[in-house]
Amino acid sequence: MSPSFAIGIDIGGTSTKIGIVDHSGKVICQDTLVTNTFSSVDLFIDSLYNKIVPMIQQVGGIDTIIGIGVGAPNGNIYSGAIEYAPNLQWKGIIPLASFIQIKFGLPTTLTNDANAAALGEMMYGATKNVPHFIMITLGTGVGSGIVIDGKIVVGHDGFAGELGHTIIRHDGRLHIGTGMRGSVESYASATGVINTALEFLNIQPEKASLLRNYAPESLTSKDIYTCAMQGDDIAKEVFEFTGKILGEALSNFVMFSSPEVIVLFGGLTNAGALIMTPTKFHLEKNLLPIFKNKIKLVFSELNESDAAIIGASALAWEK
Amino acid sequence: MSPSFAIGIDIGGTSTKIGIVDHSGKVICQDTLVTNTFSSVDLFIDSLYNKIVPMIQQVGGIDTIIGIGVGAPNGNIYSGAIEYAPNLQWKGIIPLASFIQIKFGLPTTLTNDANAAALGEMMYGATKNVPHFIMITLGTGVGSGIVIDGKIVVGHDGFAGELGHTIIRHDGRLHIGTGMRGSVESYASATGVINTALEFLNIQPEKASLLRNYAPESLTSKDIYTCAMQGDDIAKEVFEFTGKILGEALSNFVMFSSPEVIVLFGGLTNAGALIMTPTKFHLEKNLLPIFKNKIKLVFSELNESDAAIIGASALAWEK
Repeated sequence: MSPSFAIGIDIGGTSTKIGIVDHSGKVICQDTLVTNTFSSVDLFIDSLYNKIVPMIQQVGGIDTIIGIGVGAPNGNIYSGAIEYAPNLQWKGIIPLASFIQIKFGLPTTLTNDANAAALGEMMYGATKNVPHFIMITLGTGVGSGIVIDGKIVVGHDGFAGELGHTIIRHDGRLHIGTGMRGSVESYASATGVINTALEFLNIQPEKASLLRNYAPESLTSKDIYTCAMQGDDIAKEVFEFTGKILGEALSNFVMFSSPEVIVLFGGLTNAGALIMTPTKFHLEKNLLPIFKNKIKLVFSELNESDAAIIGASALAWEK
Repeated sequence: MSPSFAIGIDIGGTSTKIGIVDHSGKVICQDTLVTNTFSSVDLFIDSLYNKIVPMIQQVGGIDTIIGIGVGAPNGNIYSGAIEYAPNLQWKGIIPLASFIQIKFGLPTTLTNDANAAALGEMMYGATKNVPHFIMITLGTGVGSGIVIDGKIVVGHDGFAGELGHTIIRHDGRLHIGTGMRGSVESYASATGVINTALEFLNIQPEKASLLRNYAPESLTSKDIYTCAMQGDDIAKEVFEFTGKILGEALSNFVMFSSPEVIVLFGGLTNAGALIMTPTKFHLEKNLLPIFKNKIKLVFSELNESDAAIIGASALAWEK
């Protein structure tokens, strides 16, 4: 019997999503773990194992499984390790792919979470048969997966594609996690959008805004979206500004790899045209003439709740 | 008889360099044309032909030649055309590779001049056996050739690798040629260095400087180098600032493709440590921890006067 399924594991700072996925990208069954409740990697893997073994039985046993793909922050495809991930409590270099492979007896591939997302998009989403594209994940942070000639760019050490940390405003907003100023992530992440809203409220104290009805410390990017949809000027300005920064950043990225498509993915894309329209405008505005009106800027076609698992599972087929 | 030589043609806004190069990268014979004296491409090709045919005879006839490689501004490897090159007087799309191939009866490949330089470096220079590197050409403008997995990145349309036009200072210095503000090229090119010197002289009118002995309109980057080597403070500040901008830009590029080596090439590299030291400092300063102390920043190992021809000739072997 040839294998019909792959296991996808997406490790995030908060939760770890696991699922079994068929070759068409359909998630057959899935579950989650709370990542940071496990003080040691061993305990985490034991818990993964206890969750996944019944799922494997459910789809027909281990012979139906081609392998395991893992997406993780600072995941390195060369070493199969998570290396110094700032938002995980396991410190240093964790050779997670080896640990999982030994525990499960299945070939295991691990990579950066945004690279896994790009692979999922290429296999099942908006960029099937697109050899040159860039995927930007707009979530709590800003990640990226760059595809050139149909291959994920990983660079000489496995860490390529950290476009969220490129600097778009010299001496700009401080990014708490990295200590850098003016990175794309400091503006175009969910956190960045909230900070922009708080700044805009602060510098226009006399201006009425629905955003003032929210406690600053619990404001979310979804709240800002809700206010913008209700016509709130400051909330709309927040998305305008975020799209401006993101569009300018994308135009820099285009001059690197000249992609045919740029895919936006993640929580912020729920804002739809509020984020797409200014991003597209400022992308085009900042391109050299030879790049203008060539690039398709689109939202991911993957279902957000499944995408992380699907992307990770794609790694297993890819191998 | 198997071919022993390749013809390299480097087309610049001012001069076109032509040469016959052996497989070890040695230039056997070379000549130049003044590019913009030819009002039509036909006349240019006729003149190329008249120069090159005797050179071919000199090395043993057309059977000794593998093909022709051409490096040109806005050269597109897919179409073999020069497309809308701002500094050439032939406008629009010029299918130069086809024209040359027909005229000479030899396979002809054309690409962007900075990509040709990167290919030359990979075959004969500092990046032999280095699969991931970025070449930055610091001349009148700033060009780039990006190599990933041993291949030049050309993107979906052939125009990837325009890192000189990425924006490093939002709302920064106007780039006359593109109309963009704050591009790397507006600071880190020879022209940029001169503009920086003029600005620095202007904002410190009371400060003595050897640079004040030069007429502003005829100041060159070499003059600024000469003054810096004589200990002139403002001239030294100019290189410090240029290296700061360039180092910051390189750190952004690293987060894209994570190269093992970055090669600096072109006129500005004659400034040696004056440009290398601040560039390296600000590159490292702006890298995320996972990238720090990994990247070799080096000068090109190609002889500058031959490099353009060697790089272009490398295209013919590559094909």
